[in-house]
Amino acid sequence: MNDLLPSFFSSKPGSSRFVTQRREPDEVRILSGVFEDDRTAGQVTTGTPISLMIDNVDQRSKDYSEIARQFRPGHADLAYFAKYGVRDYRGSGRASARETASRVAAGAVARKVLGEGVVIRAALVQIGPHAIDRTRWDWAETENNPFWCPDAETAALWETYLDEVRKAGSSTGAIVEVEATGVPAGWGAPVYGKLDAELANALMSINAAKGVEIGAGFAAAALSGEDNADEMRQGPDGPGFLSNSAGGVLGGISTGQPVVARVAFKPTSSILSPRRSIDEAGAETEVRTKGRHDPCVGVRGAPVVEAMVACVLADAFLRHRAQTGGGAFGPGKTQRE
Amino acid sequence: MNDLLPSFFSSKPGSSRFVTQRREPDEVRILSGVFEDDRTAGQVTTGTPISLMIDNVDQRSKDYSEIARQFRPGHADLAYFAKYGVRDYRGSGRASARETASRVAAGAVARKVLGEGVVIRAALVQIGPHAIDRTRWDWAETENNPFWCPDAETAALWETYLDEVRKAGSSTGAIVEVEATGVPAGWGAPVYGKLDAELANALMSINAAKGVEIGAGFAAAALSGEDNADEMRQGPDGPGFLSNSAGGVLGGISTGQPVVARVAFKPTSSILSPRRSIDEAGAETEVRTKGRHDPCVGVRGAPVVEAMVACVLADAFLRHRAQTGGGAFGPGKTQRE
Amino acid sequence: MNDLLPSFFSSKPGSSRFVTQRREPDEVRILSGVFEDDRTAGQVTTGTPISLMIDNVDQRSKDYSEIARQFRPGHADLAYFAKYGVRDYRGSGRASARETASRVAAGAVARKVLGEGVVIRAALVQIGPHAIDRTRWDWAETENNPFWCPDAETAALWETYLDEVRKAGSSTGAIVEVEATGVPAGWGAPVYGKLDAELANALMSINAAKGVEIGAGFAAAALSGEDNADEMRQGPDGPGFLSNSAGGVLGGISTGQPVVARVAFKPTSSILSPRRSIDEAGAETEVRTKGRHDPCVGVRGAPVVEAMVACVLADAFLRHRAQTGGGAFGPGKTQRE
Amino acid sequence: MNDLLPSFFSSKPGSSRFVTQRREPDEVRILSGVFEDDRTAGQVTTGTPISLMIDNVDQRSKDYSEIARQFRPGHADLAYFAKYGVRDYRGSGRASARETASRVAAGAVARKVLGEGVVIRAALVQIGPHAIDRTRWDWAETENNPFWCPDAETAALWETYLDEVRKAGSSTGAIVEVEATGVPAGWGAPVYGKLDAELANALMSINAAKGVEIGAGFAAAALSGEDNADEMRQGPDGPGFLSNSAGGVLGGISTGQPVVARVAFKPTSSILSPRRSIDEAGAETEVRTKGRHDPCVGVRGAPVVEAMVACVLADAFLRHRAQTGGGAFGPGKTQRE
Repeated sequence: MNDLLPSFFSSKPGSSRFVTQRREPDEVRILSGVFEDDRTAGQVTTGTPISLMIDNVDQRSKDYSEIARQFRPGHADLAYFAKYGVRDYRGSGRASARETASRVAAGAVARKVLGEGVVIRAALVQIGPHAIDRTRWDWAETENNPFWCPDAETAALWETYLDEVRKAGSSTGAIVEVEATGVPAGWGAPVYGKLDAELANALMSINAAKGVEIGAGFAAAALSGEDNADEMRQGPDGPGFLSNSAGGVLGGISTGQPVVARVAFKPTSSILSPRRSIDEAGAETEVRTKGRHDPCVGVRGAPVVEAMVACVLADAFLRHRAQTGGGAFGPGKTQRE
Repeated sequence: MNDLLPSFFSSKPGSSRFVTQRREPDEVRILSGVFEDDRTAGQVTTGTPISLMIDNVDQRSKDYSEIARQFRPGHADLAYFAKYGVRDYRGSGRASARETASRVAAGAVARKVLGEGVVIRAALVQIGPHAIDRTRWDWAETENNPFWCPDAETAALWETYLDEVRKAGSSTGAIVEVEATGVPAGWGAPVYGKLDAELANALMSINAAKGVEIGAGFAAAALSGEDNADEMRQGPDGPGFLSNSAGGVLGGISTGQPVVARVAFKPTSSILSPRRSIDEAGAETEVRTKGRHDPCVGVRGAPVVEAMVACVLADAFLRHRAQTGGGAFGPGKTQRE
Repeated sequence: MNDLLPSFFSSKPGSSRFVTQRREPDEVRILSGVFEDDRTAGQVTTGTPISLMIDNVDQRSKDYSEIARQFRPGHADLAYFAKYGVRDYRGSGRASARETASRVAAGAVARKVLGEGVVIRAALVQIGPHAIDRTRWDWAETENNPFWCPDAETAALWETYLDEVRKAGSSTGAIVEVEATGVPAGWGAPVYGKLDAELANALMSINAAKGVEIGAGFAAAALSGEDNADEMRQGPDGPGFLSNSAGGVLGGISTGQPVVARVAFKPTSSILSPRRSIDEAGAETEVRTKGRHDPCVGVRGAPVVEAMVACVLADAFLRHRAQTGGGAFGPGKTQRE
Repeated sequence: MNDLLPSFFSSKPGSSRFVTQRREPDEVRILSGVFEDDRTAGQVTTGTPISLMIDNVDQRSKDYSEIARQFRPGHADLAYFAKYGVRDYRGSGRASARETASRVAAGAVARKVLGEGVVIRAALVQIGPHAIDRTRWDWAETENNPFWCPDAETAALWETYLDEVRKAGSSTGAIVEVEATGVPAGWGAPVYGKLDAELANALMSINAAKGVEIGAGFAAAALSGEDNADEMRQGPDGPGFLSNSAGGVLGGISTGQPVVARVAFKPTSSILSPRRSIDEAGAETEVRTKGRHDPCVGVRGAPVVEAMVACVLADAFLRHRAQTGGGAFGPGKTQRE
């Protein structure tokens, strides 16, 4: 647990000209749940809830007078106002992408619960209309460009593309793919708490997410039964699958294969181009977002997607251990302990 | 509530040569939660939990000796066995598509909670590689073919296609689209209990679902910010949106627009073609599913998708009423009461 | 699990002239969650939810016309009516003591989860104003009288007393004490899910319960700090406490000592003596309950109290295993595995 | 909501020589969930979660070397250690009575949810063996003494008694009674979420609580059915009860009468008198708590009990509004809106 904070920072969304430069350092303070004395080898968890706090230090005095009464198209302004009759337009409250910092922090704790046997990593596989070439997939490349892109050639293309989008005062969407390896067979549950359903919940809850798929996902609709059903052969360490259309989950329970999911992010709603809207009084108006904005909010998405998968898997692991003692049975076992 | 059962039966997956003929009539009995005497106008709910029971009357004596030890590719056999060390191979237990009957029954209750102002209807928009032509969308057509297809021409094509798939002993996937109209602005919540996240959870939990998207969904990744952010103009009854990329949900809260989602179903895993697999002892084997099987399990999906949306919306309505008293504020209101 | 049903029946509230003779045999059917084939040694759980059903076979045609509109004093009639505007007066619905049969059935499953190391047993320690003499406590005696009374002399007194109460058309209350031995140190949680709070919840939720106490309970208010704080000495198998004022729980977590609780039951509300009341129209009336009634509903309470303690402990055990892997540390360990 | 903080401070446990003088001012900061601009009349809630923070400013450097390894009798030291293998002995972590400050803060928010129609107030009715004389009950007196005692004569007696206890280095227990008026009939639920069960849970979860009773409570065991069942007559504003043995709850649902509960607090475990114990290594030792200690922790209990009742009632109110729309039916209605 003593590397909790480094773990958080290493997965913090990076900085580049494609993500807005904010002043906040996203410093995490641990308010509770850890302990250290001369007998512990550094900081250890006490078993009680870990409270993490990230102060929002970017409260520059800004003129909100315009958007205070306008509903920005594509934002949650109108929805919040309709629900509560009041909304915090200063920074957008919980609808702000800054909210995802807390998810990344929680994910760092969840990874500790999972241990090093479970490896979770995400990559961007599409920005705007430009998908990667999967034959060039190289995880190492995700460290070499500001996009978590596993395909160097496409990363170069994206750089040009996003510059154009930004100059045009526009924005674009993206798709993030995530993979968790080392998940043993048996996590999840048959009806309530299905592993894929909980992944869908967690991933769709990320700001700007509009779609979630597991394994073959939407492409499965066009597959034949022969191509979709992953065949099995016996391998040296238990059953080996010959494909992974299932994305590591069948019947709501992990199969021991890598858990694979994809998340679609919509384009940033804050754009320079003026858009038609109305205000709280019902008057028609035009809205344009001045100042900083990310041309593609999905670029920040990979660490958040990883974090949410970590949280779901940690939950599934703990519940599996509760019910079964944690072991796995039979030939499919990829036991954790 | 006195038309609870008719409501269930009208949404029961239909019968055709594209869905296997089972003997079970899916009769629902209400075990608790309703009451009737000479002062009530028919059956009324008591406020206490409604327990519905559907007996599985199709317990024909069948020879399970083969699959009792084999792991069928694409099924949850291995996952259940790895988790529990035992599995109920007679009818597949909770992994059986029959489990969805209980979802449809629950959905009938949820529709009563929502009232007639909320209309939920689903249609198949793709079977195998064949998507409908959305310009021909006609909800009335969904009643005229065995596929809940809103496009008569495509329905004819699907009929031919599915006959071929069935004769080949194969299967195929499908995509279901669902729309809920009459949902007022304000249902859902900002972080936990986001309406789109709960829809994703509920829809991904349906057997064979592999993907869920809201509004523009995965296509949003390729949209520009201008095209994605739904503009607003003031209409006679409050704000009117000029498009619905959001699918009726922004920031986890409904906007008053129709809630739109799509679900991808994988092909039926039970196919006649032999597939390579292993058994509980780790021995390699081949599995082929004899007897009845649906060539496209997604054909049964539309009523189940509707039911899950009804359950999620009913929950969201009740929680919204808890927190706010149920009303809506400001220009966006599409108030229920 | 194959002795699930015997376990239920052995803890079923007994029959004597002090509990009304009902026709229902309380037959439990297991609807789901168990499985048996030639490879299992009898019935085993599958890991999926166990659904138990007890039909209410005592639906004799009875004249409810009087109580259909009256609010019986001490019953939940008025509360249900105020909440829902309708109530099921035929057998009182969920407010009937018959509801506790489902608790006893669930408790039988919970005992299986706990295993034989945890022994839960309850006894009546007071009926009306007559408390037992604790110096005569003998668990074996609870089998020898119809009151689960551990003190033979008091049991004889109660027999006379209850006969008088019954003849007078009156009723009386009771106190049940429950003890769970074999609970290792470490179950429970520091704030949410405290073991004593969950016991209080579960026990207070039993029909007719009006008070719950743990260990010294209300008597602790009058104790000195010296008398209340249980001292410890090192024993052969770990720490030994010299007293058990804590009732086996400190800070919401079990200490390894027996968990001890007491529950107060109010007198049966259905009595022959006429009581003043009103009806749904607000008219004043008198209510008297004809026909069968238990003079002391608490006499049926011991198996229900045991069952609720079993459910709470099984939950605590599973959650403890989720968080910690199930073991216990240090000198206080009374490890289960 | 703009008087949230005054409301907190007015219910903050007072200061006297009977409660230890701590340096912490228990300053509450509101981190989220409120908003204020020129259009709001002061601070208003936004509908999103309200996060309250009370810094623990009393972190004086203290020598914990002794208790770091000892298990203090009557404390949760051993239980925490057995569960987690580590414990935060500096201030006792979550087992510290300081944890109750967060309960009082949450209760201040809950009171806002309930509105002014629901009045919750608590009083001490027993300290050590000395119970109040209920015929002298005067709520106004609770403001005139440091014990929340409604009986001036007994307050004077307690003052003398507690001085003796403190001088002897000992401690004593107490009983707190709480009453909530203005709770309409209909809050709660028939089986899960019973109002009395949730009160029991919440009250037993308070540090040092060992017993909870509703209405007549344990005394109900000795009552006759005639005395226990509260009779009803029709009054000008609906049904009037002639007594309140039920404590305002029947069948888990409020009746419209005042909700009445009592909580027993054990004596402070930290006492000067040496007590036998063991340490982490299993060695026998003696423990005495030097420095400050409250002779009767129950004296601080009244505001905490009030706060927990407020939280439970606010929950019950919101859930009742979710299910029923918030109204009440029939003659028993004491409608809130």
